[in-house]
Amino acid sequence: MQKTPYRDLEARFARLDALEGASAMLHWDMSAMMPAGGAESRAEQLAVLKTLGHAMLCAPEMADLLGAAATQSDLDPWQRANITEMRRRWVHATAIDDTLVEALSRACSACETVWRGARAENDFARVLPFMKEVLALTREVGAAKAEKLGVSVYDALLDEYEPDGRAHDIDAIFADLEAFLPDFLSDVMDVQARKPAPLPLDGPFPIDRQRGLGLSIMKSLGFDFEHGRLDVSLHPFCGGVPDDVRITTRYSEDDFASSLMGVIHETGHALYERGLPTQWSRQPVGKARGMSLHESQSLLMEMQACRSLQFLSFAAPIMRKAFDAQGPAWTADNLARLYTRVEPGFIRVDADEVTYPAHVILRYRLEKALIGGDMRLEELPGAWNEGLHALLGITPPNDRLGCLQDIHWYDGAWGYFPTYTLGAMTAAQLFDAARKAQPGLPDAIARGNFAPLLGWLRSHVHERASSASSTDIITAATGKALDADIFKNHLKARYLEAT
Amino acid sequence: MQKTPYRDLEARFARLDALEGASAMLHWDMSAMMPAGGAESRAEQLAVLKTLGHAMLCAPEMADLLGAAATQSDLDPWQRANITEMRRRWVHATAIDDTLVEALSRACSACETVWRGARAENDFARVLPFMKEVLALTREVGAAKAEKLGVSVYDALLDEYEPDGRAHDIDAIFADLEAFLPDFLSDVMDVQARKPAPLPLDGPFPIDRQRGLGLSIMKSLGFDFEHGRLDVSLHPFCGGVPDDVRITTRYSEDDFASSLMGVIHETGHALYERGLPTQWSRQPVGKARGMSLHESQSLLMEMQACRSLQFLSFAAPIMRKAFDAQGPAWTADNLARLYTRVEPGFIRVDADEVTYPAHVILRYRLEKALIGGDMRLEELPGAWNEGLHALLGITPPNDRLGCLQDIHWYDGAWGYFPTYTLGAMTAAQLFDAARKAQPGLPDAIARGNFAPLLGWLRSHVHERASSASSTDIITAATGKALDADIFKNHLKARYLEAT
Repeated sequence: MQKTPYRDLEARFARLDALEGASAMLHWDMSAMMPAGGAESRAEQLAVLKTLGHAMLCAPEMADLLGAAATQSDLDPWQRANITEMRRRWVHATAIDDTLVEALSRACSACETVWRGARAENDFARVLPFMKEVLALTREVGAAKAEKLGVSVYDALLDEYEPDGRAHDIDAIFADLEAFLPDFLSDVMDVQARKPAPLPLDGPFPIDRQRGLGLSIMKSLGFDFEHGRLDVSLHPFCGGVPDDVRITTRYSEDDFASSLMGVIHETGHALYERGLPTQWSRQPVGKARGMSLHESQSLLMEMQACRSLQFLSFAAPIMRKAFDAQGPAWTADNLARLYTRVEPGFIRVDADEVTYPAHVILRYRLEKALIGGDMRLEELPGAWNEGLHALLGITPPNDRLGCLQDIHWYDGAWGYFPTYTLGAMTAAQLFDAARKAQPGLPDAIARGNFAPLLGWLRSHVHERASSASSTDIITAATGKALDADIFKNHLKARYLEAT
Repeated sequence: MQKTPYRDLEARFARLDALEGASAMLHWDMSAMMPAGGAESRAEQLAVLKTLGHAMLCAPEMADLLGAAATQSDLDPWQRANITEMRRRWVHATAIDDTLVEALSRACSACETVWRGARAENDFARVLPFMKEVLALTREVGAAKAEKLGVSVYDALLDEYEPDGRAHDIDAIFADLEAFLPDFLSDVMDVQARKPAPLPLDGPFPIDRQRGLGLSIMKSLGFDFEHGRLDVSLHPFCGGVPDDVRITTRYSEDDFASSLMGVIHETGHALYERGLPTQWSRQPVGKARGMSLHESQSLLMEMQACRSLQFLSFAAPIMRKAFDAQGPAWTADNLARLYTRVEPGFIRVDADEVTYPAHVILRYRLEKALIGGDMRLEELPGAWNEGLHALLGITPPNDRLGCLQDIHWYDGAWGYFPTYTLGAMTAAQLFDAARKAQPGLPDAIARGNFAPLLGWLRSHVHERASSASSTDIITAATGKALDADIFKNHLKARYLEAT
């Protein structure tokens, strides 16, 4: 095969992919297997792999290769899309110099460490100077990337998590949701109050049985254990590489529901990774398309498919068998009431499907203001508390339950938050389209048959990888761009109309 | 700190160490965790890491840096020894060009694959042409390294596993053993025949209890679970990095003894890795000193310490408790008889302590003749069978039980075999010296207290790492170079004099 600039780039990115795959496996190991004493040498391993990968991306020949490849006339649309994604990675890597990368990395480490103590002791003032440093350097990074990408500073940061995502579009979608949510929540609470409270499930639920139940449901959903594993970690995640997807969960003997729904959530992520086109697996164009589409795949499985009465009517007897349980608490109806309970609270990660968007919208508005320089960090706690009150009608009694709760900002992840709710909305829209395309889909789910759903997702989302933008993928799959009405209709159907 | 050539080299080798540590963890994962479907992407990851490491070692500036560092007058003895080990790695990496490395690697893969089928179907002729290719390329590699190292072709191959090891020295030691073994074996069989046969231990032995027993004995031996793990793999090994040592075992419900002794063996390897000096952990001089010293540490724990009546008198009640067992089969005496049973057989990996050296001496003589061009591969099966008969008085009925049994040669590991028996002899000599230095040592072991033994090994072996040759380490620790008499005395004491 002749060595064209494009082929040269493909070979380079394949090597980079192997390095990044190695890092992904080591990250998984660090969370799921590594004894505490291995931390120091693991940090060295990961740092060296990262440095080598960065050097590959920033090699002096890259600019010319990317330029020359773009003029090749012999490329097909996937190869052209591949060049676009290669260039995106190259721009993000080269926009900022090593000194700034290192300064930010050091500031994040320091801030995250202080944040752990500050959160535990409810002391925002303590972490404030460290957070200021992180924010200042993040804005510097954003400004450098913004110049290269020709977008705003916030959009430049967002682009790393949500390629081609723009605050302008998110503003419109979130404004729509924000107008809808407070009244809707009040209606939901009224409806819920008129129904019997769900009966609690009495534990303990032995961990080996929870694990067995999780594995069995993963299998029903289509997880391929020849290409993946389920293990335990403190913070559940989906890691590894598409050939070998490692998902994790955590167990509590008192509550199996949260682990099970977590397993289903991570399985959604895993199915996306597994469904990516194998012939492009080592190239940027073959990777999952951004965080919001990734989150849509996990939330589609968890929120759309598996908190439904259909799925729970399939799962209820399996759950009863897993725990030798019986009685009225274990009916599909009661399980559905348990799994769709709505209750405004302070903590995002504990939030239900209805109140979750409020947590995200709040963070999105605040981070945009902070990055844009429209708000000072000193104002954050007050703005947070006012914002949450406006959205959910409750005010955090302290910063631990307020602006100190999430690691993201303290660890340098600015521009990440909107992808959670964009993902939830995308999930609703994709599930709606899949049901319309295949009217038998809910019945199949009620029989534990996820093949029709997975088949539809594979061809409409997974196999497209990064060959098109999120918006193009959603539009091609559902007939329209992301539309808050579909998400709102889903919420109305589930929380107002369900029996 | 000023950037001297030596400091430059240290920084380069630290990076290389991190890369190799990453590879080690990925190898462990591949054997202990990875689902089958992950093989292809893992192979890519490992290949890219290896290529990057090789490029670091072969960087054009290395020759000058090594030369300049060697003339620095400001270095201490460890730094000088470090340069020696850096140079050794550099010579092995640069002596052969990439084409040859790749040709050998491809020949080994092909040969190993064919060997698996050939062994299963007892068909040496099938693998012969592939083995010829491996041998020819191995001789080519050996010749290239021999020229750079100024040693024989066989010694050049041996040097990779046993730095500074020389066939001339091994010949003398093995000749001594070879003269001793046949008559000794006959005496042992006579003595054994006059004693009652050991009572068998009746299973099944549940795997979770075997694991619990293994963990408990590992703890007694001094394994630090803050810096390591025990898992399962098809072929037990000790992997990972000194900060995070991963050992594996395999379980059979019918037999707990082989898994337990395997765990003890790997724990010996692990304790060596953990005992290496932390301040040198990322440098070549801080690594374990060759295969024979490594094997000495595993065999010291397994053969010297833990197949002793002292250890078994400590372990017997723990074993009984682990399996709710009782009766005359579970006394320390009976366990000791079981664990020191001698029986000539065809398979090396199943061999006892007395007959094992015969298997190794046979392979050593044959591989030296093949590498030296004194024997043709076609002659191997016949020479093997004659050789085993001369040493053990038995003749393999087929090649599956003969020259097809071990993977080593088929996979390109020539010059490795002697380290097994050198390790066994070194273990006897070190244990003998440790007992003389600390007369209370056997009593401590009988109480399950390995601290005195481990303390002695740490200061006399582990902490010396690669700062001196194996011979110098053994001489400093025991007062003399490797001496077959000490190993022979150990065998006589255990197998002829024991009650």
